[in-house]
Amino acid sequence: MRQVLHRLLIATRGQGLVEITGEVSSWLAGEHISTGLLTVFCRHTSASLLIQENADPDVRYDLERFFDALVPRDPARYVHADEGEDDMPAHLRTALTQVQLSIPVADGRMVLGAWQGVYLFEHRSAPHRREIVLHLLGD
Amino acid sequence: MRQVLHRLLIATRGQGLVEITGEVSSWLAGEHISTGLLTVFCRHTSASLLIQENADPDVRYDLERFFDALVPRDPARYVHADEGEDDMPAHLRTALTQVQLSIPVADGRMVLGAWQGVYLFEHRSAPHRREIVLHLLGD
Amino acid sequence: MRQVLHRLLIATRGQGLVEITGEVSSWLAGEHISTGLLTVFCRHTSASLLIQENADPDVRYDLERFFDALVPRDPARYVHADEGEDDMPAHLRTALTQVQLSIPVADGRMVLGAWQGVYLFEHRSAPHRREIVLHLLGD
Repeated sequence: MRQVLHRLLIATRGQGLVEITGEVSSWLAGEHISTGLLTVFCRHTSASLLIQENADPDVRYDLERFFDALVPRDPARYVHADEGEDDMPAHLRTALTQVQLSIPVADGRMVLGAWQGVYLFEHRSAPHRREIVLHLLGD
Repeated sequence: MRQVLHRLLIATRGQGLVEITGEVSSWLAGEHISTGLLTVFCRHTSASLLIQENADPDVRYDLERFFDALVPRDPARYVHADEGEDDMPAHLRTALTQVQLSIPVADGRMVLGAWQGVYLFEHRSAPHRREIVLHLLGD
Repeated sequence: MRQVLHRLLIATRGQGLVEITGEVSSWLAGEHISTGLLTVFCRHTSASLLIQENADPDVRYDLERFFDALVPRDPARYVHADEGEDDMPAHLRTALTQVQLSIPVADGRMVLGAWQGVYLFEHRSAPHRREIVLHLLGD
């Protein structure tokens, strides 16, 4: 059994879901691990990870709108405001989703379902460069 | 150290929590791994995983009702409607919970607390057959 | 490759976030694993885990207040009441966050971002002694 670490840099265009299934799969394919466990870790507190439907773009639209309504960008609600009005909502949306996903690997690929894609969920308004750590273990 | 993959098919009866602790434990017991890490992965975007209280059935009832209120099945709220009125709420409830759980194994058993059970959370109205991938690593 | 299990007992002072980054890091440092995967598992259904901002204490205050509003301690909303008015909200807040985190390890340390801390989120009113299982795998 062996393990390998990798760093992925993902440019976001402000608030919204960015699919990273392709980037993760491409790297995985080059590692020649047939069976294993892949962990995806987001090193931020205002961006998070989600496995979501990868077919209809309306799902992403609805999902973004849902989080906007559930965690409003209303400065009157929060004490923390140092980094802008979008920062505290970003922390809360991160708390409600995940910063880490572990996905089994079989036949050299993530065992995602037919409609599952891996997404980085940017919660800030401005574009950011996000750092994702990949840890792969297997043989 | 060795690893093993397994596929579990779980029949649901429509929306609600289905305890799968027994199925997972039974399989684990047969693998004779004393210390390790077990990852449970749900290959769907309208069903998810939860570790919840396994004692009072009222907890499950309240939990299902809470998610009904937090993510209403109200078609006026969502654009995505192709697969039925229960589909977009199912994606959102999946986003708010998890599709993956990793549980340490000690003495051949998951280290669940006394009141913790592993549940599959079906978010669609109709019964489904759900595919869960188990990845076990240890020795 | 080798693995090791450890049990951490954390005393909470009632509802709120307790940072455990230090306790986890200290244990990790003594294990001399350079590259690996660390899994943190909370054995409870009324306390959970979160990776959150570790700089401004206002973030924790806002986060606690947000969960108070999202999952009110209002007995009229829940059937389950056997263990006190704070118990069912505690289960729901646990469902909305996580009981497990897996964090890659590089150069002997968790690959946390500059602003990420690991927190135990106590959801009950009374102080509790919480049991966290750490599983570390690597070499």
